[in-house]
Amino acid sequence: MAKSKGNEAQELTQLSESLGIQFAYPKSVKAYITGSRPDIQVPYREIYQDDTITPTETIENPPIPVYDTSGAYGNPKAAIDLKKGLPNIRGVWIDERGDTEVLPCLSSQYGQERVNDPKTAHLRFNKLIQPRRAKAGQNVTQMHYARKGIITPEMEFVALREQMKMDALFRDPRYEKLIRQHAGFAYGANIPTHPDQITPEFVRQEVAAGRAIIPANINHTELEPMIIGRNFRVKINGNLGNSAVTSSLTEEVEKMVWSLRWGADTIMDLSTGEHIHETREWIIRNAPVPIGTVPIYQALEKTGGIAEDLTWELFRDTLIEQAEQGVDYFTIHAGVLLRYVPLTAERLTGIVSRGGSIMAKWCLAHHQENFLYTHFDEICEIMKAYDVSFSLGDGLRPGCIADSNDEAQFGELYTLGELTAKAWQHDVQVMIEGPGHVPLQRVKQNMTEELSHCFEAPFYTLGPLVTDIAPAYDHITSGIGAANIAWYGTAMLCYVTPKEHLGLPDKEDVRTGIITYKLAAHAADLAKGWPGAQLRDNALSKARFEFRWRDQFRLGLDPEKAESYHDETLPAEGAKIAHFCSMCGPKFCSMKITKEVRDYAAQQMQEKSVEFVKKGSKIWS
Amino acid sequence: MAKSKGNEAQELTQLSESLGIQFAYPKSVKAYITGSRPDIQVPYREIYQDDTITPTETIENPPIPVYDTSGAYGNPKAAIDLKKGLPNIRGVWIDERGDTEVLPCLSSQYGQERVNDPKTAHLRFNKLIQPRRAKAGQNVTQMHYARKGIITPEMEFVALREQMKMDALFRDPRYEKLIRQHAGFAYGANIPTHPDQITPEFVRQEVAAGRAIIPANINHTELEPMIIGRNFRVKINGNLGNSAVTSSLTEEVEKMVWSLRWGADTIMDLSTGEHIHETREWIIRNAPVPIGTVPIYQALEKTGGIAEDLTWELFRDTLIEQAEQGVDYFTIHAGVLLRYVPLTAERLTGIVSRGGSIMAKWCLAHHQENFLYTHFDEICEIMKAYDVSFSLGDGLRPGCIADSNDEAQFGELYTLGELTAKAWQHDVQVMIEGPGHVPLQRVKQNMTEELSHCFEAPFYTLGPLVTDIAPAYDHITSGIGAANIAWYGTAMLCYVTPKEHLGLPDKEDVRTGIITYKLAAHAADLAKGWPGAQLRDNALSKARFEFRWRDQFRLGLDPEKAESYHDETLPAEGAKIAHFCSMCGPKFCSMKITKEVRDYAAQQMQEKSVEFVKKGSKIWS
Repeated sequence: MAKSKGNEAQELTQLSESLGIQFAYPKSVKAYITGSRPDIQVPYREIYQDDTITPTETIENPPIPVYDTSGAYGNPKAAIDLKKGLPNIRGVWIDERGDTEVLPCLSSQYGQERVNDPKTAHLRFNKLIQPRRAKAGQNVTQMHYARKGIITPEMEFVALREQMKMDALFRDPRYEKLIRQHAGFAYGANIPTHPDQITPEFVRQEVAAGRAIIPANINHTELEPMIIGRNFRVKINGNLGNSAVTSSLTEEVEKMVWSLRWGADTIMDLSTGEHIHETREWIIRNAPVPIGTVPIYQALEKTGGIAEDLTWELFRDTLIEQAEQGVDYFTIHAGVLLRYVPLTAERLTGIVSRGGSIMAKWCLAHHQENFLYTHFDEICEIMKAYDVSFSLGDGLRPGCIADSNDEAQFGELYTLGELTAKAWQHDVQVMIEGPGHVPLQRVKQNMTEELSHCFEAPFYTLGPLVTDIAPAYDHITSGIGAANIAWYGTAMLCYVTPKEHLGLPDKEDVRTGIITYKLAAHAADLAKGWPGAQLRDNALSKARFEFRWRDQFRLGLDPEKAESYHDETLPAEGAKIAHFCSMCGPKFCSMKITKEVRDYAAQQMQEKSVEFVKKGSKIWS
Repeated sequence: MAKSKGNEAQELTQLSESLGIQFAYPKSVKAYITGSRPDIQVPYREIYQDDTITPTETIENPPIPVYDTSGAYGNPKAAIDLKKGLPNIRGVWIDERGDTEVLPCLSSQYGQERVNDPKTAHLRFNKLIQPRRAKAGQNVTQMHYARKGIITPEMEFVALREQMKMDALFRDPRYEKLIRQHAGFAYGANIPTHPDQITPEFVRQEVAAGRAIIPANINHTELEPMIIGRNFRVKINGNLGNSAVTSSLTEEVEKMVWSLRWGADTIMDLSTGEHIHETREWIIRNAPVPIGTVPIYQALEKTGGIAEDLTWELFRDTLIEQAEQGVDYFTIHAGVLLRYVPLTAERLTGIVSRGGSIMAKWCLAHHQENFLYTHFDEICEIMKAYDVSFSLGDGLRPGCIADSNDEAQFGELYTLGELTAKAWQHDVQVMIEGPGHVPLQRVKQNMTEELSHCFEAPFYTLGPLVTDIAPAYDHITSGIGAANIAWYGTAMLCYVTPKEHLGLPDKEDVRTGIITYKLAAHAADLAKGWPGAQLRDNALSKARFEFRWRDQFRLGLDPEKAESYHDETLPAEGAKIAHFCSMCGPKFCSMKITKEVRDYAAQQMQEKSVEFVKKGSKIWS
């Protein structure tokens, strides 16, 4: 990716035009499930398969539905113009509820300054968005509606999205063998055991109980709603963010779209450099998935990088600024209490969370309690006026194996539990961020403590990395921890790329990180027994066994890479339909031999049947 | 890698010359521990570290020892000539035992034919090796010696290798903080809790009990002995093998050396093409690690690929041929019984093991029981005459998630247990091969069944892959399963490369596969609490925290890749010693802030101390 040449507009136009090509999923159709009203159009993707051809017959293989995060980008019929943003999906739903008002102008001081700043005019999103806010005295969170017994269109949307037509497939004879799956083991989670149980009412109950969240800021109307909770499919987050050192606005938008192409369920914008307000606007207006941020990063930016100069007022203004742009969840490090900070002094790697170290420094400098903690109720007031969800940050998470599960980490976790209860008093949605480095034998404790002390609020974990010795492979060390903790009950996994600890990820790193986490999340869905989770595995394995090479590629998480790896050894077009593969060669193929074994066994059975009939159908002695 | 141009000799010379460069581990010294006799020289590697430089002092960081599989290739002082092979390490030890004899010529018919075949003369290893065999009535297995109470030099060697000087380090004040580690959880394994417990006698006991094996054919005198058992470090195997479709002799030797460079503990030669006899000779003569094979592959080759034409006599001749070359362990699919074969007919992917499908086909064709099962005692006679270890093959392992843990798989496993007991009557060493595709929630059962039905014989597993949907990322899907099953008790993990299911791995794939499995094995060592396992993690994390970038690279499993990833973002030489990294930029760095927090906290403590003294040293109320 080239660095910005200052001509962001031109770069964005070029990017818009190239997106159709980027999103050419092989032999796939972007499809929609229509809900109870025509404006509920729930996306998924269907992968079409080749026929199974045997010497005697041709058998049709049914299309396989897969969860799809690509938004309009994955729809070849949609016209993409990044400068206009994505279509408005939720506006009517929010309007209909009648509990919000359109503001005459941005209410944050900083937002207003930026709108009126001629220096950043060329970076500004074309269309000025008029923000909404809850009317005085109103609460517009999904949790609030859920607790009042209201099923919102958002809830119905996510129910259909999680179910993904499996209710129909489970009754369709074409899928009879393909939907078979092993019993899961879900460590006490209340996973639906049949697709029919994945109803809007089930979603409402889970949201009302706080076990799941639907991050959906009323100012993010472009959003295709999704749900994060341990009784639903495991989700993954992809990060992006420019820093003072490198990367441009267009790069970040491109990285977001790229992440969606591979399957990111949410995106966190972790930018710390200049123009982060403008970058965020472009990202949200073009994001079909929830966007999360860490507002303290921008607040620090506004102090010129001096943590001691942070104030509640500055932070508050930043929250409002971002809430009115449409950020769906905020990481807030409100659990970094003054008394926990000295507990990190003897650690091998101290405090490694950026947010955590900022707040620790502030607390020590002022000899005061963390202002995010002392002003927590006021933060809740803002959150519920826009329906921004909390992602309660783990500022004291361990930065190495040695520091895992220590007093500082768990002290903060228990405080996050206390804050969860407080947020829920405001009907504000909450998830809890989890640890970065934990060896395998200590992973489970993190989940157990989180469930019990944070009352089953969704856990959102970074990895964890199960060893520190593999820089450049930390997507894998963390993927191992991620699959395990997701199996134990984590609702969303924050991806890690191969560049973790070393540098900023490029596009290939993002792709590798996302796919690694998609497979880890899927491994957990299988392990927990999510209904229909094994369908894609079964279809792919059947294709593999039948030498339908193209279907094997198409059904995989990364068809392009699978095909290119295959072609490195056997590039000829013929090899893709050949009944052997490069590992064994044409004469010596275990799958081919198995087919012969099957035919032989079938013949034997037939011979025995004939013999059986000849002998007068008596049972053999 | 270029395809062979027929001039293997020239290619091997070029490869010999290039090996020194390939093996330049940064700031590392290949070191040796001398055992009770001067010819016991146990290799390891020491990674030297930079000093920690603070404004007030310079603190020396001690070297970190790591397990080393690189043999003479990792020793810059060793002269490598692939055409001569590696130095003879074990010859004297074997001689001294006085229970073997040097044979006048090769005893296998095929071996003799090959020696006398002028067509393959140009491919033949230069030095004719005179094979050894046990004298009549003698048993030369490590298990036999162990059961007689004899500690062989091989046992002492592996004890020192596993201990890796940790006994001394645990008493060295320079390592006091670095050796701290979390309590492990080993699922009932009898892991040493202190390095002092890793003694030759402990090794002898584990080998005598069959819980560990030392694969060490008396004809593989170039071997640096190693041990496979769940009460020792988890090991990994790397595969290589030419096939009828692609790859040459030099390529395979190069791949082996390359695998050792990254840390393969054993190598399986899975060749199926022509010249496999000659390729194997080159590999073994240049292998410091145990070499495993699947003799049925070569036997099938000899029948022209016709499974029905296999005979016990042909197979027996192949076993002797390979045993006299020095193969350390044989995969033998003796558990594929006639009655299990029909149990696979309804599977989604039938029989995917090559060996399993060959034997299944043979059984069905002849309506007879598997000849490997019926001749098992005779096989044991051969094994104990050369000390070849069994790797009892899982010919009916599942080839997809759907087929995991089924009746066919476990039926075979129970038969492998029966065969283990029989092999142990002959004092023949045994490990048990394990499943390829198993979802997370069913992995544990594999380990439990293996331990109970195979009497704790070491488990040697392929992966397992925890989902089928990620072709091109199967090193990761399997790495997740591998870390888990190794934690549960698997002794050795068979690596999987990104090309699994798609094609033959190239050098980069081999590297990725090995590193993935090294980190999975290490994650399990940490989880089980192997003494000293956390040292490398701690040292690397300390280096990371102190911005000793070079040490962070050097201490990692792949220093080259870590450094190149770092340099992609911040290529300047200065950045490697800079006190910030690309993720956050110079002003905004969580680790830098933590340092300030620490300094601040220390200052606070000092002020309080001064105050304390001023107030007359009274305890504060």
